[in-house]
Amino acid sequence: MSTTKLIYFPLKGVGEPIRWLLKYGNIEYEDILIGFDDWPKIKPTTPFGQIPLYEENGKKINESIAISRYLGKKVNLIGENDWENLEIDAIVDTINDLRLKLKKYGYEKDEKIKEQVKGPLFNEIRLKLKKYGYEKDEKIKEQVKGPLFNEILPYYMERMEKIAEANNGYLAINKLTWADFYFIGILDYFNYMAEMDILKGKPVLEKLREKVTNIPAIKEWIAVRPDTWYM
Amino acid sequence: MSTTKLIYFPLKGVGEPIRWLLKYGNIEYEDILIGFDDWPKIKPTTPFGQIPLYEENGKKINESIAISRYLGKKVNLIGENDWENLEIDAIVDTINDLRLKLKKYGYEKDEKIKEQVKGPLFNEIRLKLKKYGYEKDEKIKEQVKGPLFNEILPYYMERMEKIAEANNGYLAINKLTWADFYFIGILDYFNYMAEMDILKGKPVLEKLREKVTNIPAIKEWIAVRPDTWYM
Repeated sequence: MSTTKLIYFPLKGVGEPIRWLLKYGNIEYEDILIGFDDWPKIKPTTPFGQIPLYEENGKKINESIAISRYLGKKVNLIGENDWENLEIDAIVDTINDLRLKLKKYGYEKDEKIKEQVKGPLFNEIRLKLKKYGYEKDEKIKEQVKGPLFNEILPYYMERMEKIAEANNGYLAINKLTWADFYFIGILDYFNYMAEMDILKGKPVLEKLREKVTNIPAIKEWIAVRPDTWYM
Repeated sequence: MSTTKLIYFPLKGVGEPIRWLLKYGNIEYEDILIGFDDWPKIKPTTPFGQIPLYEENGKKINESIAISRYLGKKVNLIGENDWENLEIDAIVDTINDLRLKLKKYGYEKDEKIKEQVKGPLFNEIRLKLKKYGYEKDEKIKEQVKGPLFNEILPYYMERMEKIAEANNGYLAINKLTWADFYFIGILDYFNYMAEMDILKGKPVLEKLREKVTNIPAIKEWIAVRPDTWYM
């Protein structure tokens, strides 16, 4: 019986890079999937109300990036010295900055939709006129996504493309590291939030995705991963 | 001449833990302070438009937590094995989660104030009636700070106090690590955002602050640090 466990929702999200590192290292583990109905019961039992949690030999720990770094070392996807590891850590935290910006826009969008829909329609009517809500949705999405599409995403993706160009096609230190696993592993979630393929028109990053997703252990996992994990 | 440099604003913020680690390790470095007027010129020259940047032997790198981890290793404030380092990393990322929540409330507050002040008053009048703006300010601050003070801060601080209790008064692995430097070093900035001492009523964490700020190198630095660094 496996003593290694990953506790997360049945989706990709920030848990997927952890799964990829475990698969890559051929580490046997249990994917414990928390349904959204069960989450309110489980949330108070977690260290800071968040998952993923990683468990090894009965010890549990939170924070997806910290866990990914730990596994990156275990499966030998790290640098050869401290400065190289600093370069890996810096690009991963930069990717996380982008995640928070994507999330922020998602959140603003939802708040604005709520306000606008709440105004003209009462609750019961709103439920009957879901179509109305959807129409509003598209309009507002465009409005709040302006800065995201015109400024933030191009800014980050242009710089990351250049970094990959300068690093032999990888995100750091000229070779495959857990930073590449982190980015390509979380990419479906980013694309879900952005509602587009953020690598479009970035050939070096597109090639990196191809390389990572064609690693046998990753390719195999993607083939059997539930289709219902839409994000 | 020192080849180690820290490039940051003339304030504590997320740069202060880096300064503390450098002082603790007796590492000679240059504190390059970017004035707010110069920042727009310098911003486009940085990797992702953000500071602090850390420079060593002509190589520059971004991301304050990554830099703090690197220096934590350099000054021997890390764990004895990979799991211990994972525990340190996890609590530091948790502290960063709290920072983002504090920031989010600061941001919402500003946006709500702008909207409310923009409504009843034209720009010229607003300038003349600054007092009006201030009054609104206090009201809205309270309103948006409800969830922060009643839920988020107690939630995090109770858990961190318990973690310190269980770890011999430290944030991880029963001894002084760079996680303690990170938290106590960034605390003035947190307290500035929260407009209160978030350690109040948390004796174990209060004692940790006392311990870290009384380390000779840190005590010395705090004594000479410019008073104008209000946050």
